[in-house]
Amino acid sequence: MNFQSHNESRTPSRAGVLAAAERIGETVTRTPLLPVPEGSGRLWIKAESLQLGGAFKLRGAYNRLAQMSVEERVAGVVAFSSGNHAQGVARAALMLGMPATIVMPGDAPAVKLNATRALGAEIVRYDRHNESREQIAAAIAAERGAVLVPSFDDVDVIEGQGTAGIEIAQQLGRGPARIVIPCGGGGLAAGIAVALPEAQIIVAEPEGWDDMGRSLALGGIVEVPADAPFTSCDALQTRRVADLTFAALVEAGALGVSVSEAEVHAAMRYAFGIGLVVEPGGAVALAAWLAGRLPEIGGDTIIVCSGSNVDPSAYAAVIGGEV
Amino acid sequence: MNFQSHNESRTPSRAGVLAAAERIGETVTRTPLLPVPEGSGRLWIKAESLQLGGAFKLRGAYNRLAQMSVEERVAGVVAFSSGNHAQGVARAALMLGMPATIVMPGDAPAVKLNATRALGAEIVRYDRHNESREQIAAAIAAERGAVLVPSFDDVDVIEGQGTAGIEIAQQLGRGPARIVIPCGGGGLAAGIAVALPEAQIIVAEPEGWDDMGRSLALGGIVEVPADAPFTSCDALQTRRVADLTFAALVEAGALGVSVSEAEVHAAMRYAFGIGLVVEPGGAVALAAWLAGRLPEIGGDTIIVCSGSNVDPSAYAAVIGGEV
Repeated sequence: MNFQSHNESRTPSRAGVLAAAERIGETVTRTPLLPVPEGSGRLWIKAESLQLGGAFKLRGAYNRLAQMSVEERVAGVVAFSSGNHAQGVARAALMLGMPATIVMPGDAPAVKLNATRALGAEIVRYDRHNESREQIAAAIAAERGAVLVPSFDDVDVIEGQGTAGIEIAQQLGRGPARIVIPCGGGGLAAGIAVALPEAQIIVAEPEGWDDMGRSLALGGIVEVPADAPFTSCDALQTRRVADLTFAALVEAGALGVSVSEAEVHAAMRYAFGIGLVVEPGGAVALAAWLAGRLPEIGGDTIIVCSGSNVDPSAYAAVIGGEV
Repeated sequence: MNFQSHNESRTPSRAGVLAAAERIGETVTRTPLLPVPEGSGRLWIKAESLQLGGAFKLRGAYNRLAQMSVEERVAGVVAFSSGNHAQGVARAALMLGMPATIVMPGDAPAVKLNATRALGAEIVRYDRHNESREQIAAAIAAERGAVLVPSFDDVDVIEGQGTAGIEIAQQLGRGPARIVIPCGGGGLAAGIAVALPEAQIIVAEPEGWDDMGRSLALGGIVEVPADAPFTSCDALQTRRVADLTFAALVEAGALGVSVSEAEVHAAMRYAFGIGLVVEPGGAVALAAWLAGRLPEIGGDTIIVCSGSNVDPSAYAAVIGGEV
């Protein structure tokens, strides 16, 4: 078995992201870069919500799994995730013919549980309040000799997520001035920061769960406090970011912004109005723009909408204006 | 004033569509061609629901308005529409600095009324059951010397809509075997048929409103009967197709399929699951596939999702499973 990243001596690099883009090829969807009607021609949404599996996670998972040895492929992979990384790993494993076991919280959205199961993965559920998913996943990995695939604390995963940044520059036809990115553990933000070193990077987080933003401001990693408020952004409920993602964002000079529940819902309704289903955690960057939280800047701003996996009833309540 | 098409001696042609694509350039969004996860690699959605204004209509409207003389531009344009064509004409007029007056039914979705007004157009509402929008629009056009822009019975409009077909072939990298297209008056279907003469064209319509399909089967135009059932597909409530659109689809050997309300709702829920908001009328082609209404075929099938403009409360009811 293998608890540790196989590549812990490396840090994410632009060369690594370019190699990942080559490796991934047409396995992932080239998600659209859509002009925002109210953006005066300088504002764009990178709709990773339209990625296969409904989130960017396939990029990193495929990049990690595709580099495994034949022996590792036979033993398969284990991952823990509230849902989007679960689907990414399950789909990548299916594409590469590998067995996958996913440890998911018992209260994960049903839509994410069902989609992961439909991809052929074995699901192991745990109690998010009383059990350690890390320990459960590690035990399964040890028992089966399987590789544990982290959702963000891994160079190959980060470089895979960064391929979204390469696409942005290609689709825009020039380097963007600024990219605003939803941030849980920071894998997507770190990957894009490494891919586009000239761009200003802003990470967006839910209020109270803005640990990456506070860590960047303080110059050292701080965790989400135990009494953090409720957030509907299930995809962003990460208690502690990784040294790898934090370091990449420090190097990029990234800044953080945070948004309220009401602002997240307003962003989901705005996205609906232009034809995009976006889940709460996927809408925080859009929320930051809508709430006027982004300073004026020259050049192009890219807002990443990172996922669309939300339970229909929860979505209907937001769109129908009940919450 | 000018009731008649300025180009009535022409019929839509592939050369005209290519010229339209050149003319439109980057004014319209190059909407994504998205792989359908369950489509075994041979099924794609052309998401015109993500077009500026939430429907394909900007393509035809811009292609028509951009060819007007300076005198015509000053006098402006008039259009009648339940909503999507209204928005397309209003946005094209705004882009070209022309005044626009739109005649809309009083019971059009509020989201479509408001969006059209927000684009600077003057809205004139009428009673869909007791008044003739054609007469109202003609009277306004006569009074102001403005040009009436038909929503589908116009060569330039049809050729503009056909630019979606050019994009499909470019994005796929090869000619598709089959394209399934929502059909009201038939402008989009006729345009794509002309753009891609090698492809099999299937028009999708709501049950009871399948006048294009029946007309194609009978070899002559039949109207929607006065007692046609209720349909939520407000964008497809056209009582009679045009000679121009019918002729183009006859020439293409097009076939029709029809779908039920329940099948439309199921398609809207499926689209939600892959991150796309699709309005009822925009979902009929997807519904035909989901309902197993499309025969097996070799090669690639493209499903056009043509619009996303639906009132939030109506959408929430469908997604939440209430209807």
